[in-house]
Parts: sequence; C-alpha cells; structure tokens
Amino acid sequence: MEDKSVVKNSGLVHPNISDGWFYETSTFWPGQKMALEVQEILHVEKSKFQDVLVFSSKTYGNVLVLDGAIQATERDEFSYQEMITHIPMNSHPNPKRVLVIGGGDGGVLREVLKHECVEEAVLCDIDEAVIRVSKKYLPGMAIGFEHPKATVIVGDGLEYMRTRENYFDVIITDSSDPVGPAESLFGPEYYTLMHKALREGGITSAQGECQWLHTSFIKTVLDFSRNIFPVSEYAFTTIPTYPSGQIGFILCSKSQETNFKEPLRRWSPEQELKLCKYYNHKIHSAGFVLPNFTRSVLMKSD
Amino acid sequence: MEDKSVVKNSGLVHPNISDGWFYETSTFWPGQKMALEVQEILHVEKSKFQDVLVFSSKTYGNVLVLDGAIQATERDEFSYQEMITHIPMNSHPNPKRVLVIGGGDGGVLREVLKHECVEEAVLCDIDEAVIRVSKKYLPGMAIGFEHPKATVIVGDGLEYMRTRENYFDVIITDSSDPVGPAESLFGPEYYTLMHKALREGGITSAQGECQWLHTSFIKTVLDFSRNIFPVSEYAFTTIPTYPSGQIGFILCSKSQETNFKEPLRRWSPEQELKLCKYYNHKIHSAGFVLPNFTRSVLMKSD
Repeated sequence: MEDKSVVKNSGLVHPNISDGWFYETSTFWPGQKMALEVQEILHVEKSKFQDVLVFSSKTYGNVLVLDGAIQATERDEFSYQEMITHIPMNSHPNPKRVLVIGGGDGGVLREVLKHECVEEAVLCDIDEAVIRVSKKYLPGMAIGFEHPKATVIVGDGLEYMRTRENYFDVIITDSSDPVGPAESLFGPEYYTLMHKALREGGITSAQGECQWLHTSFIKTVLDFSRNIFPVSEYAFTTIPTYPSGQIGFILCSKSQETNFKEPLRRWSPEQELKLCKYYNHKIHSAGFVLPNFTRSVLMKSD
Repeated sequence: MEDKSVVKNSGLVHPNISDGWFYETSTFWPGQKMALEVQEILHVEKSKFQDVLVFSSKTYGNVLVLDGAIQATERDEFSYQEMITHIPMNSHPNPKRVLVIGGGDGGVLREVLKHECVEEAVLCDIDEAVIRVSKKYLPGMAIGFEHPKATVIVGDGLEYMRTRENYFDVIITDSSDPVGPAESLFGPEYYTLMHKALREGGITSAQGECQWLHTSFIKTVLDFSRNIFPVSEYAFTTIPTYPSGQIGFILCSKSQETNFKEPLRRWSPEQELKLCKYYNHKIHSAGFVLPNFTRSVLMKSD
C-alpha cells in the first residue's frame, strides 16, 4: 500500500499549494477557504481558458482544480454528478438525446449513459485541457467518454447551441462558477438558446451555486429563467469539497406539467443501489426542500 | 459602519490563527481544514477542560472555537440549533421538562424555549468558561440563559443525569466531538443514563457527527443506542462551518410508536417562518433522507 504520509515531490509547484496543503480561494466566497492536504502535484497548466491543476490528496483521491476552485475530487464527485444528472433525467418521460455543456471531466456523461433510453449523448466543453487531464488523472469520471453513444465536441457551448433547434430532450450545464470562462452560461441569452435547442417537453439542469453563499445570485437566475421556461426550480446536494459543503441546481422545463419534486421515472430499489452512490428517488425529492431563510426567496410554489 | 478590511490587533494570539486566518484542524477529519478570515481575536483562554477561543470573522460574525474546532458562528448557527432541537421537540406530543447537556453557548436553550408547552428547561454544561464567553460575545445565542423557565448548572452531564430518574421528556446533547471533554457523551453508559432519566415516551437528540466523514462511528452509536431504545435514527442538517458542511443528529425514543420522520406537532406556516430561520416541517422529514452510500448502513427501516 502506498505510504500516504510522505509528500511526493513531482517538481511541480502551484500558487494555491504551500506547506503540503492546497488552499482554495475565490472572491466568489470571501472570508472562507477550504484546504486539502496534498500528496503529489500531478499536473499544472495554463490552458487557453484557465489555470488547470491536478493533485493527489491525502484523503480525497485525485483532485481537479480550475482557476483555483475545486471542480471534482474522486471521493465525493458522485454526489454532484448523480444529482445534476438524474434529477432532470428522471423528470423527463423518455430522454433520448442529451447534451452536456461543460462537464469536461466526463462524470456527467458517465451518469447520463446509465439511462438505457438515451440514444445520443453529446458533450461540448470549451477547454480540451480539462478533457485531456481528466482522461489521464480521473479515469473513473472520464469513463463516460468511452461510451459508444457519446460524442465529444471541443468548443463554445453557446455557439454549439446556436446550431441546434428543437433537438435535445435534456441539456445539462456542468460549469464552473460565473467568474471565468463559464460566465456566459449563467445569463438569459444562454437560457433562451437552451429553450430553442430543446424539443417539446425538454428539460435543463445547470450548476446553480450554493444557497448558503449566493441566495441573491440564485434568485436572479431563477427570475429570468422563469420568464423563459414555464417551470424553474432550485434543488441542492451535499458535497464536502464545494464551498460551504453544498451545491445547487437550476432545473427548468418547457412543459408546464413538469413537477421536478417527484421523479416521473424511477429505478427499482436494487437498480438504484447498483447504479448510484448518492441518488435515490427520495433524495431526488428531498433536494427541493429548502430551509426557511432561502425557501421564501427561491421557491415559486410549495 | 465598521471597516471590515482592517484586521484589528487586540494583542491576543492563538496557535490556530496566522496571517489573518483561523485554520481549523483536527485528527477527527484528517486531510482537510476549513479556514475563516479573522477580523479580531476577542478571547483566548485555557479553561479547566479545553482551549477556548472567540474571534470576530470577516464574513461569519463572531466565532466560538473549542480545542481548535469551530462550535458556532453567528452566521450559520441557527441551522444546527434549530434542527437538533425542533426535530425531537416536535416528535414528542407534549414536552414539558427538557434537559440540555452541553450547549453552553445557549443556542439550544433559546430554541427549546420557543415551545410554549415547556415548563422547565435545565442546561448542564461542564465548562463555565463557555457559558461566560458566550454571554459576552454571542448574545444572540446566550439569550436563552435569560428565560425565566431556564435553570443553568455547571457540572458533568453524566453526574447530573444520575440524580434524575423518570423525569425529563426531551434530552438534547449539544456536545463537541468525541475527542475531548465530550467523549463520554458518545458511549452506551450515557445512553443508558438518558433512558433512565426520561419519562415514558421520552426522546433524546444528540450531536451525531457527519455522514460524509464518520459513517462507521455513527453506525456504532446507532447500533448500541438501538439496544437501549426501541427507536433510534440519524438525521442531518447543512451548516457551512462544520467539517464537510453538514452535521447529523442521533435521535432516540423510549416509545416504539415514535416516527421521527414525520413531525407529531407542527407550527403554522406563519409561526414557522417567524420562529425559525432553517427548520420547517418539510425539512424535518427531509433531514432523514440519506444518500445511498450511508442509507444502507445507517437506516434501520425505510
């Protein structure tokens, strides 16, 4: 067994790593930071779009970091990937064509392809570096790229969306925070493009930030998305390595009939346990139950 | 308005604070640490039982730290205090006598006394220093101490419990982690004493650690408590400044009839919003919905 007590010296350095610890910082969550103990720095790169770092940690497996913010760790990534995927997928009666914008680590694609009804899954990430390093250092996530139903496009999500109309059943936006290359994915223009790219009854799910940190930001996205889609709701999941230990999702539907809070489709209990480490039909519903301090601000109906 | 950009120099120092940041460390959550930016160190003391630190933070208000672990911040304490209190209180048909073990910041007492049916609320904390500094620096929590129905005892929780038999309706154990003065509050002897100190139908709630970090520890406590009480369940709440952003509760009942997952008593929607910033009857139930990776280990029934 590998001795985790020794910090390996790969010769690489990174400004967020000192004294054997990675410190996450962002102006998007002032006054707080998460730190993870580093085993070895595996990869450092300035891609065309962002700073890319991969390190192996003492207790969270390999960790992907973009522009100083943790994107995924091998220990807890399943919570985010399963919830951002299976809530929309199980809210749609029969999703055949699925688009993932961002998600260059491959984890969401992995989850999408657990649904046998899917015929085509397209992933479009702007940064080839993320896909490349994930294939090398996060094989458990990048396994999604290998599936025969998967198509991978390196390009701008908005540009790709403009080429598609009335095509997809589900669009999942697995983006970083709105303070870098993903900024355009949090605006009304993007939501209008998604609405056009979806078939009738189509559904979207997007990384929607943390209710403990960004209530007013979430409210803004919900407000404009409710002008574009008849249904728009916020749900959340727990995940230790995202800021404040939670992350949310903005869920929209073209159909007035969609009730996101109750899954339309369910796996059997055995399938659920076999396919998912986090998601089940009860936690699908529980993800929409908000505390008082955000409930009155974020919920349209109750 | 106070200028939060300047770190005040109170002349105090603490080993967990350097370069204007507090770094939480514990062997109980290896490989990760939370950091909060410090505005001013307000109090440093070695009490008879533990290291006591209070500082004002840049973005989380005043913060109480015991033995290097964050106990409460003014920004997010309500989540913990409300959930550890109102889940057991609203699972009991008519709680009149309530005991709080630990809870020296006064927050749980504050929540207990929101229930008008309560006739007597006793708090027993081993460390007078916690009560003293909370009264000075956490007045929003310590307000519980001022209530005419409250009795405060400085002493050992186990010793106090031995003096009471068939007396309380609800016992809430608001303790720090099982690696310091609170260690004895996580063992079968303590649960046996609680069982004796409760009246028929009595209910307990205890700080029960985080399912992302301590699944096997939680399982151990649930296992022995299920040998002492006919009903024992685990629920959780989100809270940014506890390790991994969540904390759980061990809930036990002397009555086989208790279904913790559905509150027996409810406030009206208006009262709920007036009295609570986090708790509501839906989040009471949602707190028991566990992800697959802990559900199969921790849940007795589903």
